[in-house]
Amino acid sequence: MSDEFFMKLALDEAWKYQLLTYPNPAVGCAIVDKNGKLLALGAHKCAGKAHAELGAVTLALCELKPELKSELLRLENSPNELYDFILKNHKGALNGACAFVSLEPCTHFGKTPPCALLLRDLGFCRVVFGSADLGGQAKGGAKLLANAGVSVAQSTLKSKCDELLEPFLAWQSGHFAFFKLALSLNGVYTGKISSQIAQKHCHDLRSKLDLLVIGGNTVRSDRPILDARFSTTKHAPDVLIYSRKSEFERQIPLFSVLNRKVDIKNDLELLKKAKFAMIEGAGRLFKALENEFSWVLIYQSKSFKKGSFLDISKSLEIMHSTPLGADTALWCKVREN
Amino acid sequence: MSDEFFMKLALDEAWKYQLLTYPNPAVGCAIVDKNGKLLALGAHKCAGKAHAELGAVTLALCELKPELKSELLRLENSPNELYDFILKNHKGALNGACAFVSLEPCTHFGKTPPCALLLRDLGFCRVVFGSADLGGQAKGGAKLLANAGVSVAQSTLKSKCDELLEPFLAWQSGHFAFFKLALSLNGVYTGKISSQIAQKHCHDLRSKLDLLVIGGNTVRSDRPILDARFSTTKHAPDVLIYSRKSEFERQIPLFSVLNRKVDIKNDLELLKKAKFAMIEGAGRLFKALENEFSWVLIYQSKSFKKGSFLDISKSLEIMHSTPLGADTALWCKVREN
Repeated sequence: MSDEFFMKLALDEAWKYQLLTYPNPAVGCAIVDKNGKLLALGAHKCAGKAHAELGAVTLALCELKPELKSELLRLENSPNELYDFILKNHKGALNGACAFVSLEPCTHFGKTPPCALLLRDLGFCRVVFGSADLGGQAKGGAKLLANAGVSVAQSTLKSKCDELLEPFLAWQSGHFAFFKLALSLNGVYTGKISSQIAQKHCHDLRSKLDLLVIGGNTVRSDRPILDARFSTTKHAPDVLIYSRKSEFERQIPLFSVLNRKVDIKNDLELLKKAKFAMIEGAGRLFKALENEFSWVLIYQSKSFKKGSFLDISKSLEIMHSTPLGADTALWCKVREN
Repeated sequence: MSDEFFMKLALDEAWKYQLLTYPNPAVGCAIVDKNGKLLALGAHKCAGKAHAELGAVTLALCELKPELKSELLRLENSPNELYDFILKNHKGALNGACAFVSLEPCTHFGKTPPCALLLRDLGFCRVVFGSADLGGQAKGGAKLLANAGVSVAQSTLKSKCDELLEPFLAWQSGHFAFFKLALSLNGVYTGKISSQIAQKHCHDLRSKLDLLVIGGNTVRSDRPILDARFSTTKHAPDVLIYSRKSEFERQIPLFSVLNRKVDIKNDLELLKKAKFAMIEGAGRLFKALENEFSWVLIYQSKSFKKGSFLDISKSLEIMHSTPLGADTALWCKVREN
């Protein structure tokens, strides 16, 4: 199979954790042995956890050296120790292997040691990547590997890999905002749409945000909580209620969530200043704020449903369609109409 | 990677040709060499063309024996000659390989020789399949292979493989009908929805049908052609206009298509008798005929759009989501509400 085939698998893995890696980039990695056998798919899942390459190497070694498995899994959330343990115990198991990574392997000693050194020291003979990082942690990874005699190919599925990286580059410039909505298969946004798994995904995202933006009308009519109770950390985001009128019933649940700041404003200054913001709403807010976001995340359910339809016009490009239980997460980019 | 991983790839390949194989089943096949390297993905594309196993073997040999490639490709549409050529020239290239097939390999000398013999004679050491055929062409494939010393595993992703097979089993019982509609991402069905690639797919399907069913109101308002001009064969299907009133302007283009029969009826006898029927329409016809079809095919576009919304309620299960250029084909099964 082609390099593109394996890179596509690495990308699919990475999209499962898109935005959840904040402030780090979403990255995916496929590892193929010297005979062309796919050994593992890995992704960076969360800041502070293993990079994609280390994650995939760990899974590959679980397969190849079952005697290491329990220790590898024990160290899963301690990337530094995991890295050291692997370098001491791999015994050449990945000699001659090939890695397909969406982003150039890093050369940076940060929370984890550099992935380019890991791949070199494990004896990888080929590294294929999509996006080159021009100034970030990845800088120089290709050169380091090539200097060590590893065959390096770049720009495989580059535009797909660059898309995956967009939020990260925007965070580095200080601001990324996206619009989230839930729709039935026939465009209805009212009533219960999302399954528990999609709701958990939404709460996981909320737990990472610097700011959640919602419209005043929705707050008055839906009386939402807007917390992150289904997420692992349960960390509820600060909220901006975008509203002309500043009076709200304080019994509305979102005001009672602990450790959260709620602002009620008729301007978007807070949104523009937020490094990572999600706007939740439907057609009205979508139109009012359409210049304020570049991505749209749609949780699409599997039913035709009666209710109110999303009555707007906008060209989108679907970058990835990620299954989420019975629903699908459609990751869309806004196109000019 | 697991058996399920490779079976999933075989299924993805098969769904690209779902219904286009009429009256044959859609079948997919992945071939993995003795070292675990994925060599090829194949599918049955059309009645009279190579079965999935023969198609995948052909692609694998194109990779392994480049000197055979031009002859293999020349024989692509002559499955019998292809089969003979492969058996004479493979030189053990696939010795020890493993095949993942959605359906038990056939033992039937039909338009093409049996795939179970092909896999045996090429030296495959393992065959994994999903659906067992209890009375069709596939019957006995597993036994034949096992008797020849091939390791056989069955029921891998069985329910997914069984779903893929549903139209074929229905055709064998004499009748399969599905509802087709095109929707924008927000549920609008009016105006131009589908891209050229989705339109071609629809025309390819139309060229296979025994009957296309359409509502009288749509005929009067849209004045459609309902032909298959973008398909390879351009074979236009017979049409049933389901309508209380039997008078239609004969200038409506669908009446002028050559070699087509058009019936105008207020009953569904023709639909119920058709071996392979597609119903094209939107909400009104969907509700009127909701007991007449088991599958729904949605061509979903990538835009929010203004227009008329599909205002119905129905629980669906998405069996497969197949990219079609900028659009997506969502293959859905109707669930009880």
